[in-house]
Amino acid sequence: MMLDHSHLEGLEVGYDVPALPGMDEADIQTPALVLDLDALEANVKKMGDYAKAHGMRHRAHGKMHKSVDVLKLQQELGGAIGVCCQKVSEAEVFARAGIKDVLVSNQVRDPGKLNRLAQLPKFGARTIVCVDDLENVADLSAAAQKHGTALECFVEIDCGAGRCGVTTTQDVVAIARAIDAADGLKFAGIQAYQGAMQHMDSFEDRKAKLDIAIGMVEDAVAGLKSVGLDPELVSGGGTGSYYFESNSGVYNELQCGSYAFMDADYGRIQDKDGKRIDQGEWQNAFFLLTTVMSHAKADKAICDAGLKVQSVDSGLPFIYGRKDVEYIKCSDEHGVIADPDGVLKVNERLKLVPGHCDPTANVHDWYVGVRGGKVECVWPVSARGKAY
Amino acid sequence: MMLDHSHLEGLEVGYDVPALPGMDEADIQTPALVLDLDALEANVKKMGDYAKAHGMRHRAHGKMHKSVDVLKLQQELGGAIGVCCQKVSEAEVFARAGIKDVLVSNQVRDPGKLNRLAQLPKFGARTIVCVDDLENVADLSAAAQKHGTALECFVEIDCGAGRCGVTTTQDVVAIARAIDAADGLKFAGIQAYQGAMQHMDSFEDRKAKLDIAIGMVEDAVAGLKSVGLDPELVSGGGTGSYYFESNSGVYNELQCGSYAFMDADYGRIQDKDGKRIDQGEWQNAFFLLTTVMSHAKADKAICDAGLKVQSVDSGLPFIYGRKDVEYIKCSDEHGVIADPDGVLKVNERLKLVPGHCDPTANVHDWYVGVRGGKVECVWPVSARGKAY
Repeated sequence: MMLDHSHLEGLEVGYDVPALPGMDEADIQTPALVLDLDALEANVKKMGDYAKAHGMRHRAHGKMHKSVDVLKLQQELGGAIGVCCQKVSEAEVFARAGIKDVLVSNQVRDPGKLNRLAQLPKFGARTIVCVDDLENVADLSAAAQKHGTALECFVEIDCGAGRCGVTTTQDVVAIARAIDAADGLKFAGIQAYQGAMQHMDSFEDRKAKLDIAIGMVEDAVAGLKSVGLDPELVSGGGTGSYYFESNSGVYNELQCGSYAFMDADYGRIQDKDGKRIDQGEWQNAFFLLTTVMSHAKADKAICDAGLKVQSVDSGLPFIYGRKDVEYIKCSDEHGVIADPDGVLKVNERLKLVPGHCDPTANVHDWYVGVRGGKVECVWPVSARGKAY
Repeated sequence: MMLDHSHLEGLEVGYDVPALPGMDEADIQTPALVLDLDALEANVKKMGDYAKAHGMRHRAHGKMHKSVDVLKLQQELGGAIGVCCQKVSEAEVFARAGIKDVLVSNQVRDPGKLNRLAQLPKFGARTIVCVDDLENVADLSAAAQKHGTALECFVEIDCGAGRCGVTTTQDVVAIARAIDAADGLKFAGIQAYQGAMQHMDSFEDRKAKLDIAIGMVEDAVAGLKSVGLDPELVSGGGTGSYYFESNSGVYNELQCGSYAFMDADYGRIQDKDGKRIDQGEWQNAFFLLTTVMSHAKADKAICDAGLKVQSVDSGLPFIYGRKDVEYIKCSDEHGVIADPDGVLKVNERLKLVPGHCDPTANVHDWYVGVRGGKVECVWPVSARGKAY
């Protein structure tokens, strides 16, 4: 999918952008986020095919990549039906870019944010938001009526993540009834994303957690049906769980994000055969390109990728395709690389697979898409910093 | 220091900017970085007074705040002589903004970066760069000659941080002589920043590390003098060490950064009397303002500040001025706050002191400066994302 890049004209490589389309991959200014477009497209297509084969809607999680261009690829090549994201300001980026189905998979309580949320349908987007508190319903209704728009609502169930969401069917039903009765609002279904199990290594451990989640959701759906509120959508599922939701018989919408890029922390988790998911199920498509900038000590190289260009909350990056050198320490501006045999040279480039893709993408302004050794596209991280 | 904010006109609060000058503090859209201007100015003035009283140049570290406005405050109110920063693209931001003395306290090896570095003097900035490798000297010289500019060079000593820098006086002298002999270059002194000891809790432990560093620097200076290369500048020192360098008799330039803002990790270290440095020596001036957005569980509140708006590499934030609630978990978009007595309300605001100020500032686009309950200024994080 080639986009128009004329807006990049005049930008300076190394000041405004790390690269420009047409450049050799070797000329990208580092540190920079590089997308392997072949791998990205393969991942996107694979998830799309899976969702289609299982009769699931795939609502791609935009909070991971924060990129309109990646989301459009997920729609065009992967059949994604739209986007979910976590903040109103993110949702605005996707809605303004023409995405037609936007879920804020989070609570919106602040008056300023409610006021903006209620204007999203004006961009032409079906707009859904999560609710976990009866008191929120009146505020959402007032905001929608103020702007003459329609907001749809999911009741959020905390099915194990321990963050937002209610934990009883009684609360789910009470909130759904309030939504159903409120002017300007429509009850659209259930949000039930189990975020806490996604990174558990063992397939069986993850399955056990999802079985509990599915049980809670089944109970909630039965409770809703008993009062005549059959949920249109039951939404959840991530890269570590989507097969469980897809085969549950109760979920009908997935919210996967990281599968498209992969990262070091997700890559470690095992599929049902005990194999790392980045060694078969998904390809590494997301790299932090770095350059060796000092080798004053024989057994250590210093590279230009530190804390300012990646998040180490889920561990250090690994060096893609190398067993002989290891990224062992991360400070603000530098990475320390153990190089016991002194094989690295100053200005040599390495591809890091960051520990955690979401907060790593969020510190960069650009993705550099490469294929066959050439820069094919330079995509803005469109919703970078949109945390409001 | 009031700047002209006319460039903020037309920006939307909650989409482009978290606040506009003149607003009540209570109306800032969260999560947002808030600077307590009284505290910031007190810190800046205190360090300036200290440096002046000790005959030290203070080159404020711009990598911490990445803000032209904060740097100008450090110059005007704190007598800072200029800036140091870690990347060429950062240095460009400061030089383009009219800062006249710019040190890239790092190695520059990549051809594209060398080419840009050598153009910095054209902005009117004295430009200094660090060198730890003889091979770099010829490249720097060629770049300076290509652009007809003069680059000054510090030889970097690794005095304990374990990153860039040479470790013997022999190497220091050899590199200094090569610089001195190279066209387009001037040998300007020594970079000796001990980055690894800054966060050690005990004053005595920090002193022991700095004693070693000072010994290395004294030896290097003696070696340089013996070949007629008396260093004009001997630069180093951070928030956890500046008193050691200031009283060393060999350093003459400080590079402090975090003192101006403070953070949770630095705040914990002790002064010579065993007191936390954020309880007397420096004031907390840097806050991550957050809002409670869900309280569906009685003993836990969920706030809107997660990994996307702060770095947790040096630990979780603490909640300023509160003993009754505690920030206990950080996920991508949420913070989980233990609220055992259920005192927090939805939409209540809390001021977090982030674990680590540098990489936290680097994910935000704006600082909101407040005084007396009002937003006084909104400053761009001018060099945000400038990691090239």
